[in-house]
Amino acid sequence: MKKLFLTAAALPLLALAPADSRPAPDLVERLQKAALKDDVAWDITEGLTTEVGQRLAGTEAEERGRAWAVKKLKSLGFANVRVEPFDMSVWVRGEEKAEILAPFPQKLVITALGNSGSTPPAGITGEIVKFDSVEDLEAASDSAVRGKIVFVTHKMIATQDASGYGQFGAPRRQGPSIASRKGAAAIVIRSIGTDYHRNPHTGVQLFAEGVAPIPAGALSIPDAEQLDRILDRGKPVTMHLTLTPRNIGTRQSGNVIAEIPGRDPKAGVVLVGGHLDSWDLGTGAIDDAAGLAITTAAAKLVGDAGRPLRTIRIVWFGAEEVGLFGGKAYRDRHKDEKHSVVAESDLGADRVWRFKSKVSTAAQPVVDRIAAALAPLGIVKGVTDEADGSDIEVLTAIGFPTMELSQDGTRYFDLHHTPDDTLDKVDLEQLRQNVAAWTTMIAIVANDPVEFGPVPIAGE
Amino acid sequence: MKKLFLTAAALPLLALAPADSRPAPDLVERLQKAALKDDVAWDITEGLTTEVGQRLAGTEAEERGRAWAVKKLKSLGFANVRVEPFDMSVWVRGEEKAEILAPFPQKLVITALGNSGSTPPAGITGEIVKFDSVEDLEAASDSAVRGKIVFVTHKMIATQDASGYGQFGAPRRQGPSIASRKGAAAIVIRSIGTDYHRNPHTGVQLFAEGVAPIPAGALSIPDAEQLDRILDRGKPVTMHLTLTPRNIGTRQSGNVIAEIPGRDPKAGVVLVGGHLDSWDLGTGAIDDAAGLAITTAAAKLVGDAGRPLRTIRIVWFGAEEVGLFGGKAYRDRHKDEKHSVVAESDLGADRVWRFKSKVSTAAQPVVDRIAAALAPLGIVKGVTDEADGSDIEVLTAIGFPTMELSQDGTRYFDLHHTPDDTLDKVDLEQLRQNVAAWTTMIAIVANDPVEFGPVPIAGE
Repeated sequence: MKKLFLTAAALPLLALAPADSRPAPDLVERLQKAALKDDVAWDITEGLTTEVGQRLAGTEAEERGRAWAVKKLKSLGFANVRVEPFDMSVWVRGEEKAEILAPFPQKLVITALGNSGSTPPAGITGEIVKFDSVEDLEAASDSAVRGKIVFVTHKMIATQDASGYGQFGAPRRQGPSIASRKGAAAIVIRSIGTDYHRNPHTGVQLFAEGVAPIPAGALSIPDAEQLDRILDRGKPVTMHLTLTPRNIGTRQSGNVIAEIPGRDPKAGVVLVGGHLDSWDLGTGAIDDAAGLAITTAAAKLVGDAGRPLRTIRIVWFGAEEVGLFGGKAYRDRHKDEKHSVVAESDLGADRVWRFKSKVSTAAQPVVDRIAAALAPLGIVKGVTDEADGSDIEVLTAIGFPTMELSQDGTRYFDLHHTPDDTLDKVDLEQLRQNVAAWTTMIAIVANDPVEFGPVPIAGE
Repeated sequence: MKKLFLTAAALPLLALAPADSRPAPDLVERLQKAALKDDVAWDITEGLTTEVGQRLAGTEAEERGRAWAVKKLKSLGFANVRVEPFDMSVWVRGEEKAEILAPFPQKLVITALGNSGSTPPAGITGEIVKFDSVEDLEAASDSAVRGKIVFVTHKMIATQDASGYGQFGAPRRQGPSIASRKGAAAIVIRSIGTDYHRNPHTGVQLFAEGVAPIPAGALSIPDAEQLDRILDRGKPVTMHLTLTPRNIGTRQSGNVIAEIPGRDPKAGVVLVGGHLDSWDLGTGAIDDAAGLAITTAAAKLVGDAGRPLRTIRIVWFGAEEVGLFGGKAYRDRHKDEKHSVVAESDLGADRVWRFKSKVSTAAQPVVDRIAAALAPLGIVKGVTDEADGSDIEVLTAIGFPTMELSQDGTRYFDLHHTPDDTLDKVDLEQLRQNVAAWTTMIAIVANDPVEFGPVPIAGE
């Protein structure tokens, strides 16, 4: 990454910027250089994962996470540090066991999917019926499924842009509801992931309206392939399954917010952040301590360089994993406030490879300027009619201008939602490249007076 | 591997062999080519790990493994297929939990080491006292350790020749006894391994004579490093530890034996094999289904080419992991029988990179011939005064001529004794290269009339 500093060749584009409140090109260059030596992002990632660990939404662990966040954000010098609480229904994991009883007795590694129903404490026993996709499951007769333990597999392969997750995540998202409607006793899926470790991938699923919850679990990928091989022998396969999660009722979660107040309160807020909660199996290092850390470190670097035109608002969203509750709570509370740009980091800690945006036509020159300033970091300019983020999805949906710094997702789904999401997976140099990319984008967006909205509607 | 067929350049050495019972050079070449397309080794590895799974020594799972083995070895056409049973004391895993209570509450992933003592069912709570090595632990005063939970770490790094395992395995092998002698309540070690997954490495340890068993567990490496970071904060660290393994008394294990009878019963046995038992966390694919599979497939290829001069004996040793009980039982039963060469495959399924031997001076020309025949497979000639194997260690120790085909151990200790030791870790092409190497060695050794013993004593 050290070879990627802003080069002389990239400077002329920046030099075209008028001498108004836009940041001087040399400022962006200096900030990038500083970001590539940043220690704040590592400090946040290391601290949060070590001193709090997992932060399941709505639990006391997430609450400890908020307390840690408030203290850390204050110590970093941010203004208006606060928690905006909201209530939510909380699901917690219980016992988790899967065992093949016949024809080849052996234990398999499983974890419950979010909102899974519960077996009795002693578990249930059922015959496995396998489907290669949710489409095959949907096409099956109820009688082929009724009373059985449905097994749904898939062929997800790693992709740089993380696009496999949408398509191949269907067994987790739709599988449990379809299986329940057809009368299945339970469902187990091949983990939605791309690794070969005995660490299953949990993740949220929501039973469709009126559908009775059934036990729903994910086998690790080696275990799912073991089950494939056992089924391939052609004999009936019986599984004993114990999953005893439960809903513990309404608890409090919250968004933690910090600001760098801008010179012009009417110029609109630049919102950056990630999510504070994590799944409970790992320590939430790549998902999403790193995202909080990158955006916070970048905002601090920009703020330390001088008061920006616009207010930079850092949001550490609560309860993302279990249903984007933090994003929705933020939207409900702040939807009438002017937001110039919203952007979130939530795809791990590997390098940014692409810059996407969805802002006004008038702001396209600024988009070009950001793209040019990012190029020395090895970042390509992507589309200008689509940008995304997890918690901010509900803000993008109501027309908030959005930017996205896409991280390399190639190894993200090796780790995503597993016990393996731990600090050792974070590469310091790639983390710093992220900070440099975000510093660049925030420095320009927070200081350029252009109107980033309204966002043109696709096809116009 | 396909480029590594025996080349014309290597043939002259083989061509020097007199036209007696030694295999013709073109036979070795043909066998190597066939081995590089072998499916028998994969079939054994896949079958045993799928249809039996884990095979903890002395349990009914290992017994199912023996039944599977007898059936498979008979179906492959071997003669004298039999089980040679022996009794052993059996230790089985119980509940396994480790949790930091203060200063940063969180769960850690742990597994019990073999022969670990047990905590009460509700666990124990103790303060952690950390040592960087067993030497540091040994040097500590009893009062620094008494009543505490000892944590011993190490700096094991992957090596191709697996030499790190000896030195860095000390925390597992000696740590528990030293900690117990000093009055520790329990010991937890950094797993003896080289990966970064939340899969702890179990393994045997034997409490020294007169030392009271204490609970002894291994944290996964990410968890051990998490504990390091927590301790680095300088506050007292309290752990709640629950490990409830138990000894279930005397059970039967056994060695499974199969033969290709030689033309000359007095020519001495060529013993090849691996171990049938595995640790209970994975399915024992690389440790050691692959070793059984490689040596058996190779012996079959040699036998299918014509009756050899010497008897080839395949041994699938029982109860290796927990104390080399199978090797010792074999020694006690067969020590007076003439063995020409003994050799074992037990370092995974990655390629053979080196050939070592410890045989008579008279047999050195044959060693050279084997080395020349192995060279086209990318295998280097190693020392001729040392060779090793796990179960056969007790045979080498009493002077049996020994050969070793060293496998690449670079990634072996990423997987060794963990839940991750599963079939997906076996690479078919590397497995076949192993079969080709063993076929080469067995074909020459089983047919050359040279006397491989007596083995010269080192320094003579």
